[in-house]
Amino acid sequence: MNLAEKYLSIRKYSEQICEPLQTEDYVVQPVVDVSPPKWHLGHTTWFFETFILKAFAPGYQVYNEDYNFVFNSYYETIGNRVIRTDRGNLSRPGVSEVYQYRKYVDEAMAEFLTQELDAEVYELIILGFNHEQQHQELLLTDIKFILGNNPLFPAYHAEKTESGAASSENEGFLTISEGIYEIGYSGSDFCFDNELNRHKVYLNQFSISQTLVTNQEFMAFMDDGGYQNFNYWHAEGWDWVNSNHIVSPMYWHKIDGKWFNYTLQGLKAIDLNATLTHVSYYEAYAFSCWKGMRLPTESEWEVAAQQFNWGERWEWTESAYLPYPGFSKAPGAIGEYNGKFMVNQKVLRGASVATPEGHSRITYRNFFHPHLRWQYTGIRLAR
Amino acid sequence: MNLAEKYLSIRKYSEQICEPLQTEDYVVQPVVDVSPPKWHLGHTTWFFETFILKAFAPGYQVYNEDYNFVFNSYYETIGNRVIRTDRGNLSRPGVSEVYQYRKYVDEAMAEFLTQELDAEVYELIILGFNHEQQHQELLLTDIKFILGNNPLFPAYHAEKTESGAASSENEGFLTISEGIYEIGYSGSDFCFDNELNRHKVYLNQFSISQTLVTNQEFMAFMDDGGYQNFNYWHAEGWDWVNSNHIVSPMYWHKIDGKWFNYTLQGLKAIDLNATLTHVSYYEAYAFSCWKGMRLPTESEWEVAAQQFNWGERWEWTESAYLPYPGFSKAPGAIGEYNGKFMVNQKVLRGASVATPEGHSRITYRNFFHPHLRWQYTGIRLAR
Amino acid sequence: MNLAEKYLSIRKYSEQICEPLQTEDYVVQPVVDVSPPKWHLGHTTWFFETFILKAFAPGYQVYNEDYNFVFNSYYETIGNRVIRTDRGNLSRPGVSEVYQYRKYVDEAMAEFLTQELDAEVYELIILGFNHEQQHQELLLTDIKFILGNNPLFPAYHAEKTESGAASSENEGFLTISEGIYEIGYSGSDFCFDNELNRHKVYLNQFSISQTLVTNQEFMAFMDDGGYQNFNYWHAEGWDWVNSNHIVSPMYWHKIDGKWFNYTLQGLKAIDLNATLTHVSYYEAYAFSCWKGMRLPTESEWEVAAQQFNWGERWEWTESAYLPYPGFSKAPGAIGEYNGKFMVNQKVLRGASVATPEGHSRITYRNFFHPHLRWQYTGIRLAR
Amino acid sequence: MNLAEKYLSIRKYSEQICEPLQTEDYVVQPVVDVSPPKWHLGHTTWFFETFILKAFAPGYQVYNEDYNFVFNSYYETIGNRVIRTDRGNLSRPGVSEVYQYRKYVDEAMAEFLTQELDAEVYELIILGFNHEQQHQELLLTDIKFILGNNPLFPAYHAEKTESGAASSENEGFLTISEGIYEIGYSGSDFCFDNELNRHKVYLNQFSISQTLVTNQEFMAFMDDGGYQNFNYWHAEGWDWVNSNHIVSPMYWHKIDGKWFNYTLQGLKAIDLNATLTHVSYYEAYAFSCWKGMRLPTESEWEVAAQQFNWGERWEWTESAYLPYPGFSKAPGAIGEYNGKFMVNQKVLRGASVATPEGHSRITYRNFFHPHLRWQYTGIRLAR
Repeated sequence: MNLAEKYLSIRKYSEQICEPLQTEDYVVQPVVDVSPPKWHLGHTTWFFETFILKAFAPGYQVYNEDYNFVFNSYYETIGNRVIRTDRGNLSRPGVSEVYQYRKYVDEAMAEFLTQELDAEVYELIILGFNHEQQHQELLLTDIKFILGNNPLFPAYHAEKTESGAASSENEGFLTISEGIYEIGYSGSDFCFDNELNRHKVYLNQFSISQTLVTNQEFMAFMDDGGYQNFNYWHAEGWDWVNSNHIVSPMYWHKIDGKWFNYTLQGLKAIDLNATLTHVSYYEAYAFSCWKGMRLPTESEWEVAAQQFNWGERWEWTESAYLPYPGFSKAPGAIGEYNGKFMVNQKVLRGASVATPEGHSRITYRNFFHPHLRWQYTGIRLAR
Repeated sequence: MNLAEKYLSIRKYSEQICEPLQTEDYVVQPVVDVSPPKWHLGHTTWFFETFILKAFAPGYQVYNEDYNFVFNSYYETIGNRVIRTDRGNLSRPGVSEVYQYRKYVDEAMAEFLTQELDAEVYELIILGFNHEQQHQELLLTDIKFILGNNPLFPAYHAEKTESGAASSENEGFLTISEGIYEIGYSGSDFCFDNELNRHKVYLNQFSISQTLVTNQEFMAFMDDGGYQNFNYWHAEGWDWVNSNHIVSPMYWHKIDGKWFNYTLQGLKAIDLNATLTHVSYYEAYAFSCWKGMRLPTESEWEVAAQQFNWGERWEWTESAYLPYPGFSKAPGAIGEYNGKFMVNQKVLRGASVATPEGHSRITYRNFFHPHLRWQYTGIRLAR
Repeated sequence: MNLAEKYLSIRKYSEQICEPLQTEDYVVQPVVDVSPPKWHLGHTTWFFETFILKAFAPGYQVYNEDYNFVFNSYYETIGNRVIRTDRGNLSRPGVSEVYQYRKYVDEAMAEFLTQELDAEVYELIILGFNHEQQHQELLLTDIKFILGNNPLFPAYHAEKTESGAASSENEGFLTISEGIYEIGYSGSDFCFDNELNRHKVYLNQFSISQTLVTNQEFMAFMDDGGYQNFNYWHAEGWDWVNSNHIVSPMYWHKIDGKWFNYTLQGLKAIDLNATLTHVSYYEAYAFSCWKGMRLPTESEWEVAAQQFNWGERWEWTESAYLPYPGFSKAPGAIGEYNGKFMVNQKVLRGASVATPEGHSRITYRNFFHPHLRWQYTGIRLAR
Repeated sequence: MNLAEKYLSIRKYSEQICEPLQTEDYVVQPVVDVSPPKWHLGHTTWFFETFILKAFAPGYQVYNEDYNFVFNSYYETIGNRVIRTDRGNLSRPGVSEVYQYRKYVDEAMAEFLTQELDAEVYELIILGFNHEQQHQELLLTDIKFILGNNPLFPAYHAEKTESGAASSENEGFLTISEGIYEIGYSGSDFCFDNELNRHKVYLNQFSISQTLVTNQEFMAFMDDGGYQNFNYWHAEGWDWVNSNHIVSPMYWHKIDGKWFNYTLQGLKAIDLNATLTHVSYYEAYAFSCWKGMRLPTESEWEVAAQQFNWGERWEWTESAYLPYPGFSKAPGAIGEYNGKFMVNQKVLRGASVATPEGHSRITYRNFFHPHLRWQYTGIRLAR
């Protein structure tokens, strides 16, 4: 595929994710972290328009000046924006207008990509691809939230499964010996700035599970009163459990004494053998304490992950999201991409069933606040 | 018109109000007081289904059991419901499903209304008509809020005006002499329980304006620093002004030094001669203080209104919303209609450009919390 | 007593109320509505200093310029002030400094009061007396709150009772016939501006209880599930019950299956024959609904109260706190006394065991927000 | 000193810190993080009573059973407690009662400490010493907050300075070469569980300043618009600056165009040469960005600190507060000491002018949430 083909292929996939939706599903924002699908479609388009076409395509006509206000996410450099909590209050631009906006920008981009590009522009385009892929993952998990928190529990798609391509061939724990290892990206393809620089870390000997925690294992924690025993929890986690009345992973519902969970196929009885998902860091930590184990650090994970399958769930690590040695932000708006979030968040490693093909790397550092669980998060134990 | 024709005519008008909308406009709830249009359409339908068809139509099949949860507004008697703040989080049932629900219930109602009805059922049906008409007024003002708070300021309809049929023929103040008067409903047609019983009140002599305050008059208050001078305000009003940074009526925007306001026709320069609207009780009170006057009580209003034109704006009164002598609630869910709101609200009298034809009465008591201003509220001075 | 003697007698009583306190008790503010006792002592002193001595005593030296900031309550005219929620954060000025401040101002006032005074000053002084007496009532109820919400439940005074001088001689209901009555103050002694003007009201025939509701009667409401049945409550009252988990009047505690309440003498078993107290308007209303009766309006109360004993509990009425016909605010800071609170509050009539001698009148209008109950509030039924 | 002498010496120092206080100063809690001094005095006493005397002294009579409720801080194992925000609402037990409680427990402890003690008890006693010393530091900084946020700005003590014993002999940056280092405690004296285990880390070459940032250097950041430029801030830091209107370090006040700060000696003109203090992590990070540098990690700090003076300010590091390899919690209540706070906090290294003698170690890990700044925090730059 050439660059224009690659562009159109990635762009098309965002729209494919939305195919099962009704118009109304594109509009709502049930909680602040979940954006309306039409916002994702507009925002990723705005990204190409703003950082590529406005900046580098001579004579490009902006589609609608007001869209900068509507579709900017958090780039302070680029001016004011609709505050995040208000995204679900906007009925306009409507869904078909957003698709027209996409079409307009896609045509301009397709033409633009036929030219010879210098390195700076090329890098921004590749960043735009990766940015859109990140939003594709959010798009699917946000859609799941929108449908899964509706009292009618509509299915997203009758055949869309949530179990992974990555189930393990091997059971049991893997032991890695003490010593100096290297982590971080070192290749010549794309990576995010937060994966740089590749650097040495010293690890003590540790063991790490080759498989992810299943629903059955987590239900044993629940049955043993795990959500009611403060000993397993961080003080903040214990507050979170109690003020939100948490008694199970997200999307689980006890109906007539039996546990069900909402999946992309609708409400179903819990599959005990399936890989656990939709837990917060607090729950992942409490579960590991109850097991007498712990979560791996991101260094341990990256070193060990060469020897086990991964990619079904984003895996909470014990590591805080912090800059690697020698990390530096790019100048301008692109520099706002990662660095300014490096406080009070935890690193997740791996990828998930919602991650678009070609968008996972062993060095990839995902990050969320510890209470969030609407992504396909999971637990891998270490000790 | 017979009862079935009347029913269908009222029901059709709700849908006519929504004709200019895009599907997305039916879904959002920008603030808690503004409900999504599709919720209004569903809720008024649920009212007839629950209180008429389920209760009195033998063999009626409920359209969808889950809709009781989705479309109940505040009737504790009828079971659990989606909490009010969450109405805008529901993409399903979708707009076309809601219209199908309306169709299903309308057909059942039309058939039901061909029978002879006893008095109890007849009264409930008439209440249902009035209930739907109340929601028609909210529907239009909620739509205005949804469109008018969108950064693209889309017009509702190019020809829909907001000035009233009720502009006054006479200027100046009318004087009513001291004495005993009667207020409250006494006829044999429909009225709400809160308009009963007709009873005597003693009024001192007072004067009341025959016209409503205009934009020009209110702008003089603004120009004189009315929003910056605590002397004109209630303590709670002053807090409201300062914590919400209020500097003008709702929908007013100062652009390049000139005042515009959003109307159903879109954003326009302020029409100085138009009747002021979208002010809170706090603003109405502060304006009257600045003028050295006051707002009328609801008794004064009802007595005087026989001698002036009204119906363009809901007019804030100085009266709190309280039961009339001898007021009693109906038994069951219908008894929750009015009585339980009789604390911490102010009475508004009159009607507005959004009030459906045939739904205004000189004894009608509307009520809102003092900070609200998304209805077509206005000011009439007394002294 | 001459004016200076009267002044010193009133001022001394504030300090007598505080005699049983430890220094620490003067300092805390457990909730926003309860002010620290030393703040009351300072604020009432500041009132005389600001409105009398600074304004009218030539050569008076302000005790400490910073005290204006510390002890102003809500007078916007007089400049900035410590916000109300922060009163309990101030350890300085300390208790003995506040008593020195009182001594300094009292000496200056005593000297000032030896002169001939013109009418304006005289009126302000009388207002200052009444202002201090209002704070004496708050002082005692705030102290009760401070001690009664302490987990050690310290007694205020072993012999201080809370039952009234006003227990009724007569039982049963009194009937007042329909007609025109006059309410409001008409004498030549002091009254607050909100008691003016005396004016005519038209009352329908009504009956009103000659006695206040007792603990036993209220316990029957509790035993009948009154706090669990939404039918008896305003919508706002029902929210208040549920979000605050209200199951009894304030200061009641169920210990080992038996009800106790905190009194000024400490924690004691409920006295069933005692007059109920510490209920909110919401509870008073709900109780009256459960009884199939209602609360009196303030007009009804004032007309009927000539025929029964009152003064033990402040009695919630159905009336909202609104201006009487012809009400007008005084110019300047004194005008902020009453008028600016005339929204969203309910009128209470009578007086209570905490009311200082000589500070009650049949026309007196007390007012609080409907959820408050730390005053000695009570219930009198009407129908 | 033997153990009993050591006990009494540490206990006495807590009371010495409080000597300049008035009774009222012991009571208030202006913000949730600042506890009333009398609470600190009671809580540290409760610690010895609960974990030593009740557990190990046969026949010990608890002073007052209710004090467990009043003086427990966060030990879920030990039962219910006054919630943290309510500590400032308690006037009782009073200051002299708390001193009597101290005396009672001190006498029992002094007698208890004359015995031969087994290792478990000995360790708990040493933990109690360190616990009391931690509270001594909080006691002084909480007192500073209580006095420094009072509008009268009372001095704590005319001769108490805040500049350090630790000012540096050397200027400029120190360079540490790449390699494996060891951090964590390895001696045989007391350390907290979070300092264990000593373990290897791999560090890249780095440079670190031998001196702390001064007021003058920080004022240059302010003058250059540092608080107004989002580029220097984390997204959360930028929100913190804007929602709290932060324009300077804590305790700084601009009066008539000149900067003052509140110190333990009262309000004084800023000393430009003094070491900067009372900044949050967000400010420390933003300042380092503006300088084109960064904060050190805790590993870097511990390795380099052998070569520079420290101890005047707690120094923010870039490190999140996380368990060291092999960390494990002690069983029971003591296990709640550190581990349950290991999320969403940053590590500070060093010590401060408020740290009691003998309570600092190069391996000591202090931790606070990133927005807090009422401790004597400071900035050391790295690159």
